[in-house]
Amino acid sequence: MRNIKLTIEYAGTDFNGWQVQSKNQRTVQGELEKAIKRIFKKSSRLIGSGRTDAGVHALGQVANFTTPSNIPIERIVPALNANLPDDIAVTRAEAVPLNYHAQFSAKRKTYRYTILNRRARTALEHKFCHHIPHTIDLKLLRAEAKHLVGRKDFRSFTAADPAERDKPGSKDTVRTIYKIAIKKSGDFITIDVTANGFLYKMVRNIVGTLLDISSKHLPPGSIKNILKAKSRRAAGTTAPAKGLMLLRVF
Amino acid sequence: MRNIKLTIEYAGTDFNGWQVQSKNQRTVQGELEKAIKRIFKKSSRLIGSGRTDAGVHALGQVANFTTPSNIPIERIVPALNANLPDDIAVTRAEAVPLNYHAQFSAKRKTYRYTILNRRARTALEHKFCHHIPHTIDLKLLRAEAKHLVGRKDFRSFTAADPAERDKPGSKDTVRTIYKIAIKKSGDFITIDVTANGFLYKMVRNIVGTLLDISSKHLPPGSIKNILKAKSRRAAGTTAPAKGLMLLRVF
Repeated sequence: MRNIKLTIEYAGTDFNGWQVQSKNQRTVQGELEKAIKRIFKKSSRLIGSGRTDAGVHALGQVANFTTPSNIPIERIVPALNANLPDDIAVTRAEAVPLNYHAQFSAKRKTYRYTILNRRARTALEHKFCHHIPHTIDLKLLRAEAKHLVGRKDFRSFTAADPAERDKPGSKDTVRTIYKIAIKKSGDFITIDVTANGFLYKMVRNIVGTLLDISSKHLPPGSIKNILKAKSRRAAGTTAPAKGLMLLRVF
Repeated sequence: MRNIKLTIEYAGTDFNGWQVQSKNQRTVQGELEKAIKRIFKKSSRLIGSGRTDAGVHALGQVANFTTPSNIPIERIVPALNANLPDDIAVTRAEAVPLNYHAQFSAKRKTYRYTILNRRARTALEHKFCHHIPHTIDLKLLRAEAKHLVGRKDFRSFTAADPAERDKPGSKDTVRTIYKIAIKKSGDFITIDVTANGFLYKMVRNIVGTLLDISSKHLPPGSIKNILKAKSRRAAGTTAPAKGLMLLRVF
């Protein structure tokens, strides 16, 4: 048996997220499992580092599957890409130890949220960014974002996950954000969040709340108070999925 | 009467090029003229700096039209964008002197050709680049490209333009290329060509020929000989439209 780790790019626009839920929905995992079955002549379960929601993109999602096949490792990327739709591409395939598990082995992830900050919308990047026409105060954004870094209870920044709704057991909402990097390049602002794990809709709620502070719908200093409140109702709006991309899994 | 200059972005993928040819084809000019008519309550002919072919994109196409309307200039960009499809965006509107003509006033243009140069294809940028899996020798590309710079007869790098086929008169194929800049950023290679004008399919034929030299389908030194031959049959293949973008009009 071999354990194969894949690095995967996808445009989330036309997917119902990563995870297979029902047969009628187009998902990234579903399309990949179909291609794997076609090439390896046998079904394999593909384990992702984590789910991404409908509309969310990935540049560096990772996943693994085991197979008895001995197809040479360098043949896997071209074979999979020839059997995948245009909006999914496998960029790397590696043989890894059998104990590697894409979800449990993921120690850190970086998500990027991209905002187009100019008056006019874009015709070229509209599926990959959120358009904010009014001026965004980067200094204010960075000052607020600082309060999110560290080991914190992010309960205020998560939504009830429909997939988890009926599962019993504790719901631990403590995560560690290692870094939030906010950069501007031309008319685009990127917010990169690196953490040991992410709660359901956490990045989109953080970005939406930061933008609410920037647009004065929430007062400066709000982040601190929202963290303390430990209630989703304390936070701001949820930024749209199309601006979010899973950049890298460590 | 006012003369309005527009700067326009578009994703060429789903257009039959810039220019209106028949009523059944979706064109950038056609969509813009429809939006202008809706806002200004009167048809205006939109003059582009030049046509772009089916599938070719633009970041900085310019065009102008005259209107008796006195809608405030700062209202034009949001009004047009609200009436245009997602794959066209007007990024700027300026009032210009009545003698400004987007085609005749265009002194220089820069086109960018984008190549993804890695083994795996891309799921995110596939509509905006040409994928070349084998290694491209940038030194060789730059050395060959040098021979294209200057005032030259580019007859070998143009195709018979179907729109011009039945028009009488001389067909001047002399143009001046001011600069060709070839850069690499990550896995992407960009070839920026700045000239006083471009012949039909000129950039795509230049790029296709350079790639044929890089892949050894044509020998080094070919560019010089192809220019001398003054025949389309001397040059290499035509690179696909999707990698081409009109970057800027001066």
